Amino acid sequence: MATLKNAFYAQSGGVTAVINASACGVIETARRHGDRIGKVYAGRNGILGALAEDLIDTSKETDAAIAALRHTPAGAFGSCRYKLKGLEQNRAEFERLVEVFRAHDIGYFLYNGGGDSADTCHKVSQLSEKLGYPIQSVHIPKTVDNDLPITDNCPGFGSVAKYVAVSTREASFDVRSMARTSTRVFVIEVMGRHAGWIAAAGGLASDLTGDIPVLILFPEIEFDQARFLARVKENVERQEFCTVVVSEGAKWPAGKFLSEQGTRDAFGHAQLGGAAPVVANLIKEGLGYKFHWAVADYLQRAARHIASKTDVEQSYAVGQAAVEKALQGKSAIMVTIVRTSDEPYRWEIGEAPLAEVANVEKMMPRDFITGDGFGITPACRRYLAPLIQGEDYPPYRDGMPCYVQLRNEAVPKKLPPWLKTK
Amino acid sequence: MATLKNAFYAQSGGVTAVINASACGVIETARRHGDRIGKVYAGRNGILGALAEDLIDTSKETDAAIAALRHTPAGAFGSCRYKLKGLEQNRAEFERLVEVFRAHDIGYFLYNGGGDSADTCHKVSQLSEKLGYPIQSVHIPKTVDNDLPITDNCPGFGSVAKYVAVSTREASFDVRSMARTSTRVFVIEVMGRHAGWIAAAGGLASDLTGDIPVLILFPEIEFDQARFLARVKENVERQEFCTVVVSEGAKWPAGKFLSEQGTRDAFGHAQLGGAAPVVANLIKEGLGYKFHWAVADYLQRAARHIASKTDVEQSYAVGQAAVEKALQGKSAIMVTIVRTSDEPYRWEIGEAPLAEVANVEKMMPRDFITGDGFGITPACRRYLAPLIQGEDYPPYRDGMPCYVQLRNEAVPKKLPPWLKTK
Repeated sequence: MATLKNAFYAQSGGVTAVINASACGVIETARRHGDRIGKVYAGRNGILGALAEDLIDTSKETDAAIAALRHTPAGAFGSCRYKLKGLEQNRAEFERLVEVFRAHDIGYFLYNGGGDSADTCHKVSQLSEKLGYPIQSVHIPKTVDNDLPITDNCPGFGSVAKYVAVSTREASFDVRSMARTSTRVFVIEVMGRHAGWIAAAGGLASDLTGDIPVLILFPEIEFDQARFLARVKENVERQEFCTVVVSEGAKWPAGKFLSEQGTRDAFGHAQLGGAAPVVANLIKEGLGYKFHWAVADYLQRAARHIASKTDVEQSYAVGQAAVEKALQGKSAIMVTIVRTSDEPYRWEIGEAPLAEVANVEKMMPRDFITGDGFGITPACRRYLAPLIQGEDYPPYRDGMPCYVQLRNEAVPKKLPPWLKTK
Repeated sequence: MATLKNAFYAQSGGVTAVINASACGVIETARRHGDRIGKVYAGRNGILGALAEDLIDTSKETDAAIAALRHTPAGAFGSCRYKLKGLEQNRAEFERLVEVFRAHDIGYFLYNGGGDSADTCHKVSQLSEKLGYPIQSVHIPKTVDNDLPITDNCPGFGSVAKYVAVSTREASFDVRSMARTSTRVFVIEVMGRHAGWIAAAGGLASDLTGDIPVLILFPEIEFDQARFLARVKENVERQEFCTVVVSEGAKWPAGKFLSEQGTRDAFGHAQLGGAAPVVANLIKEGLGYKFHWAVADYLQRAARHIASKTDVEQSYAVGQAAVEKALQGKSAIMVTIVRTSDEPYRWEIGEAPLAEVANVEKMMPRDFITGDGFGITPACRRYLAPLIQGEDYPPYRDGMPCYVQLRNEAVPKKLPPWLKTK
């Protein structure tokens, strides 16, 4: 039975409405290949679970529970924000991983995350060469930010894009109703730390007739207060109201975030939130319009109830493909989504070397943003439109969605506790 | 044809995800009674449309367009925040209404709104007696705040309650996934200026097993910072994370809103927004936990995509009943929803005299709030649960909901322009 290796699967970074669909794809596919893969062990809270030898035995979960992951948002095994340092800077961490993998006969490392996680996955793929432990490391892309390179789009993004497009359209109908005597401007803040992909999705709230005047503040475009206020005024004078979609990553000319709060997360990224009230107040002070503002925050990336069917299918498919590619002997790759046609939309699964993925951020192409910097171009619409296609409603009971909670039984530990170094 | 009077219909105050379902009920029912009701004229931007003689001829809309109102959020004819003063304070306004009603042969006044609007509707019902113009005035209840008296619940509330319950549950799954290394506390701010009904719906995010630790800050309960922080700490220590639902109407002991921004709307109400960041910062400062916060604002009341089926059915039914009751010769009433059974949930249409409705706010009963002031009781769950039952998805095309935009053709004016007095 030497060839029957176990697989380690973990979720990393910010979770999404559909990352569990990838977990579902991994586990269901592994179960279909029981002749070649032993058990799937999930890391409790991502890679920390591997370091702490805190593994979840997914074989204890019923087929029905695993199937329900497909319609359950967030990270069923817990995620973490924790980036492995380089082998040279922290050799002990890598040696510990090898120790845990060896103790539990793990031959496949399937890591589900964004750019930082691709970097971790890449480092793990080097364990074979550098520490002599044979492991196949495959990255499963996930990020609402849609900023991974090479892949056409990132699982998780389509659903947040759909949420933002639908919510912005709905709220715009609301403010339009109220504009004569009350609210003139509605400002919604959305995620996207460095890239404006999510903000761009707000542009889909308006159809091509321009029924809804939407102005978008992208991280890619330096904020020009005077030009912005002039455009708000023009929209309100022409259509009585205006909707503003502001990215949490929008910046003042000096480079400071509109929303800067002064706190930082574990990766050293500035923790954001609060661009919407800043923009709303600029409008109030500059133009005197009554405003309302919303900050969608976690609501947008957790909103499994309005997930994109395309996104759910792709999220499942990348999980499935990760197992299949590992079984084909591949390693040090990220599974990708390859678009073969815009209309009708067609896509297939591909792969990219992790060396080309790790620590590279894909920004919005400049030709996806209109010349004035406040809107999306037809090319951007062509790109975005297929990603929000289709609905994939979870089942409901008593008016609430039936999201699964797994048993998450721990695998018995075989090693002494790990005392985290440094 | 002296008996074939026209009807005036208008939407008032903050709009909802389902107020157009009431409009649909009114217009479809009136069309079925073409032998007794002439045309339905809608006020463009509520009662302002009547004062300005800016009437919309709904007979120009196709049956399909009117049917689509049932699944379209916000106010299809425009709403307004405008409260008529008393007859004694502003007789000219009432005389103008009579002039417009007479010019357009309007015999039915159907007004769709909340507490302030019920007051307006009540005043209009007195025109027969006080100004000798025969009109039947029926109020169609609508308010996300659920604060109208007598009726068991208010159309519009069930859908916002469903949105808040579902979104809070989804975001709680998210923060639970992240809690080990990142966000510990998620704070969501919801509407409800004076009554905590919407905030209470956040309690439905947790099932009876207490899987999700939810603390609610109600407007009805004076905010006690020390006790609140102690409860947050207790939850985080026991379950790693905590979700907080804060009403925009939550108040400091001195009576000032947590969120006070200093601006007021046309009714003189303080304009709110921003309790969530205040609460999040208290937690950060007092306990040091990493937080995320969201302000749902218009998103919650516009979210037709996750409307409650019960709410849609009741919203349609109160519109339908308003026409039927008017045809029965009734006036000066509000249509109500009467609950006849909790489980199985049963309801029927009733009515209440407007004199007993206008300017009365229904607060949460104290026995709907737990003794500690931070949760909902089983009695509250029994009340809320049926109101979020069922899904009623709009149709979608290309990934976006198909919301209707009416033609909204104006009725030709017959009067000289009205120069608004005082």
